[in-house]
Amino acid sequence: MLSQIISRIQNLDEGAAASARARQDTLTKPPGSLGRLEELSVQLAGITGKPIPVIKDKVIITMAGDHGVVAEGVSAYPQEVTPQMVLNFLNGGAAINVLARHIGARIVVVDMGVAVDLEPHPMLVIRKIGQGTGDIARGPAMTRQQAEQAILAGMEIVEAEMRRRLDIVGTGDMGIGNTTPSAAIAAALTGEPPSKIAGRGTGVNDAGLKRKIAAIEQALAVNKPNPKDGLDVLAKVGGFEIGGLVGVMLGAAANRKPIMLDGFISTAAAMIAVVIAPAVRPYLIAAHRSQEYGHRLMLDWLELKPLLDFELRLGEGTGAALGISIAEAACKVLAEMATFAEAGISNKGG
Amino acid sequence: MLSQIISRIQNLDEGAAASARARQDTLTKPPGSLGRLEELSVQLAGITGKPIPVIKDKVIITMAGDHGVVAEGVSAYPQEVTPQMVLNFLNGGAAINVLARHIGARIVVVDMGVAVDLEPHPMLVIRKIGQGTGDIARGPAMTRQQAEQAILAGMEIVEAEMRRRLDIVGTGDMGIGNTTPSAAIAAALTGEPPSKIAGRGTGVNDAGLKRKIAAIEQALAVNKPNPKDGLDVLAKVGGFEIGGLVGVMLGAAANRKPIMLDGFISTAAAMIAVVIAPAVRPYLIAAHRSQEYGHRLMLDWLELKPLLDFELRLGEGTGAALGISIAEAACKVLAEMATFAEAGISNKGG
Repeated sequence: MLSQIISRIQNLDEGAAASARARQDTLTKPPGSLGRLEELSVQLAGITGKPIPVIKDKVIITMAGDHGVVAEGVSAYPQEVTPQMVLNFLNGGAAINVLARHIGARIVVVDMGVAVDLEPHPMLVIRKIGQGTGDIARGPAMTRQQAEQAILAGMEIVEAEMRRRLDIVGTGDMGIGNTTPSAAIAAALTGEPPSKIAGRGTGVNDAGLKRKIAAIEQALAVNKPNPKDGLDVLAKVGGFEIGGLVGVMLGAAANRKPIMLDGFISTAAAMIAVVIAPAVRPYLIAAHRSQEYGHRLMLDWLELKPLLDFELRLGEGTGAALGISIAEAACKVLAEMATFAEAGISNKGG
Repeated sequence: MLSQIISRIQNLDEGAAASARARQDTLTKPPGSLGRLEELSVQLAGITGKPIPVIKDKVIITMAGDHGVVAEGVSAYPQEVTPQMVLNFLNGGAAINVLARHIGARIVVVDMGVAVDLEPHPMLVIRKIGQGTGDIARGPAMTRQQAEQAILAGMEIVEAEMRRRLDIVGTGDMGIGNTTPSAAIAAALTGEPPSKIAGRGTGVNDAGLKRKIAAIEQALAVNKPNPKDGLDVLAKVGGFEIGGLVGVMLGAAANRKPIMLDGFISTAAAMIAVVIAPAVRPYLIAAHRSQEYGHRLMLDWLELKPLLDFELRLGEGTGAALGISIAEAACKVLAEMATFAEAGISNKGG
């Protein structure tokens, strides 16, 4: 099933992209003067295969999971905050709720592997792969089979959301400790030392940062993830919500839907997705550059130029929400602006 | 009247800003993790004097004017495009119309000095100071009295919009040739040579750029604007729409309303506004860094850090529209997020 979905991921539609590019140059503005909004509209045309793409139904998929590596003292918050924040999402009080309302997106909250059982709730999708991962500093995060299950769950969630209509998907995460596996993934795939990638996450102090770097070094030494095998990296040093997000990305690309990446954790998932299926890469849009230390290296590795640089470091999909609004604006410019001919405006002189 | 409005501009309300800062730290996220959104909410509290500011009624004021300096061959488009684009605004087909609709803002289109008479239209405010400015390469743009009239017109437009409700004002411009006076203003006030400030505007070729730089050098040599006297700089090397925007900024600050600056032309107006009334500066928010060459220097001079870096170079208020949506998001985060206490979430460990 995994390989079946991967084989469905096509290249961008160059004809649609060329049509969008050509139309941009007929609109009542100097050619190129809307900079990245124009680029984005062309990419979205290529992704969707529509010369004039529309972004109307916006979905942010926020996946939660716990991490055994918190036992190493890598986070500023206790693990119980993961389920507490999931409840906050369900009650509409978190930053992602506010920003999703602002942009008119719906949120799908998924329990991919919170360490405790959550009460059923109409807004909560329960796809728990396990009660938190193993401590990566001492062994693998999960089995290879669990990694595959997590990815399949993410794909299935996208398929379900496709039936409710979906024009763009934003990725989000919640999981105390999850900057540690994300940094481990980035270190495994870029080959850079953990000290160049790990940052303060939710705000660990100097001692906590040292413990975090040591835990990542140990995780790589103990598990020896194979950088050519995305599933191996996910299983050995990843997380359940990270695996779910990999599946969301593969599923969205297979359905020709644009993927608005949030920050550090989403980008780690994107790196695994690209190792598993390189054709995913052009479907990715980086919403922002996180304040988290290694994010720049990760975006460079993916060859993505972020839209925003707001020193965000919250996750949840908050940066993705802001990025989706910009992508929607880019599509509206392409669709709704008058052409020079329609407006009866003189062409450029020289 | 000018000095009366200027004397009404107060310092930011530090108490309101401190309350906003304190509230941010009680919301369900690691302190500071929403980066620039948090900073922005604190600035907006200080500007408005409200600990929890609200941005609901959004207005973009797009001012149009013509420029005698087009006779020097400084623009890629003929002057007739200015009134044609004003009609495009009134018909809803320009980029600013699309982006204002996207963010739910109203647009006020003002004829500050288009070279031809425009037909009356319910959406058009006519405050024409003259039929285009004089050629600054050969003499002053306007008289000192006209400069003052332009500023007063801008102030009056803000007062009128205040009566229709206004929570934030975005600045916009239209005027073939207006990057030339804007670069001249920037050169006069920063002391940097025109070659370090002038860019390609709507897209002049190499020969056009040379003519443009020469025209600015000549404008400074012929007019000798006094950098300590904002009105003098405006009169000698400015423009009618630039003067109107100076008035919009002074009027907005006097009414404790945030000002979302668009690009190169709006920033030149902001520099004059700050020379006339230094207390305006903290009311300014830079929406974006334009692709226009000298914009970075101008933002540095104003000590403003732009929100976006999208290689925009259109004007009209397009960048301001995107920035306003971000400011609105920042206020909503502050107002609508649950606190740790409300959500029953564990506090940070260490």
